[in-house]
Amino acid sequence: MWTLFQFPLCPFSRKVRLLLSEKGVGYELTRENPWEARDEFLDLNPACRTPVLHDDERGLTLRDSRAICEYFEETVDKSPMINGTSAQRAEIRRLVALFDENLYGDIVAPLLHERMKKRLILRQPPDARVLREAMKLAHTHLYYIDWLIDNRPWLAGSQMSLADIAAAAQLSVADYLGGIDWTGHEQAQGWYSVLKSRPSFRPLLSERMEVIQPPEHYAKVDA
Amino acid sequence: MWTLFQFPLCPFSRKVRLLLSEKGVGYELTRENPWEARDEFLDLNPACRTPVLHDDERGLTLRDSRAICEYFEETVDKSPMINGTSAQRAEIRRLVALFDENLYGDIVAPLLHERMKKRLILRQPPDARVLREAMKLAHTHLYYIDWLIDNRPWLAGSQMSLADIAAAAQLSVADYLGGIDWTGHEQAQGWYSVLKSRPSFRPLLSERMEVIQPPEHYAKVDA
Repeated sequence: MWTLFQFPLCPFSRKVRLLLSEKGVGYELTRENPWEARDEFLDLNPACRTPVLHDDERGLTLRDSRAICEYFEETVDKSPMINGTSAQRAEIRRLVALFDENLYGDIVAPLLHERMKKRLILRQPPDARVLREAMKLAHTHLYYIDWLIDNRPWLAGSQMSLADIAAAAQLSVADYLGGIDWTGHEQAQGWYSVLKSRPSFRPLLSERMEVIQPPEHYAKVDA
Repeated sequence: MWTLFQFPLCPFSRKVRLLLSEKGVGYELTRENPWEARDEFLDLNPACRTPVLHDDERGLTLRDSRAICEYFEETVDKSPMINGTSAQRAEIRRLVALFDENLYGDIVAPLLHERMKKRLILRQPPDARVLREAMKLAHTHLYYIDWLIDNRPWLAGSQMSLADIAAAAQLSVADYLGGIDWTGHEQAQGWYSVLKSRPSFRPLLSERMEVIQPPEHYAKVDA
């Protein structure tokens, strides 16, 4: 059995969980706060990041969310998520990088710092200026998702792919932290509602991070 | 013919150039300064990052260095660089992420900011404290490479892989910017010398970024 080291608001762990669930791969959760930099966790992953996926029986430890997703794409046939021609696969991977790096860096990382780390670890009030800037940039990313959905059924093309999973994982954390104003983004909101209503999404929506509560619409699949 | 949009000190473009060269894929270079955010470049890549690889004949634009490398791994058989079992491929991809994200974030990004952007764009002096911290962290990353090379012929295992290319691409930029003190890192230095002496590396070592000169040892393959 796989054990996933993660914390509830880690967007990269959410991406892996969605993929594993879509592919029907079972796993157990272990809570890991990477910011505590436990020696045992550093031994598992010198990059000191979640997610880490470990299987004692296989004697295998997987690290880095993209490497983990590629591994299961190669080893589990069910629900291919990096599918199509090499050019289509390049488009999926390009979007995954855009969401993992730009959407994360512009929106999710500052929200996690201001609304989670400052509250739980640093015991400081959030910086309103940083939050405003992140929420402004969120609109830029949502406009791009609107545009993609205007042109394609799913973000990377005609089929659901890892690009949808990566974007939804990041947005779900931003939404939990109150950083997403969906007003004026009907296409993005419609696309996200469809993903939220999938069985793979339900466990994520029902989990809570201690102390921090999401806004009311967060777990509603029709909102 | 492929056209690669890049600038000489972009470590991610260097990774793609090394891979293309090892695989025998021809390409032309086009200079792009992503920080200028040209409209035409934003049309090619909304993430506004180099490298971008474009082919008019194929009508294909590839973006994101990892997506580009996976594309050529899938389409060109020569010199496989993400090779082996799925577990071995996961190890290669885990290390690529470690070098692309942690080594880049800890060392190369601050060096590029302090020694390239401040000089060429912002016209400010570098912050000595930031440079000291980056050079301190460089030792941590070099110790990890020393340790890997103590245990394996190449960074990810018994064969040269994209992990070696990704690490060498980042380190070559840090070395150009005077951020690497190789003293006490015999294993890492020996491994890097072997890579530097490959034909794929030579064009990189002979190029210069305007105004900024590398230290004397930078282009020497035996240093």
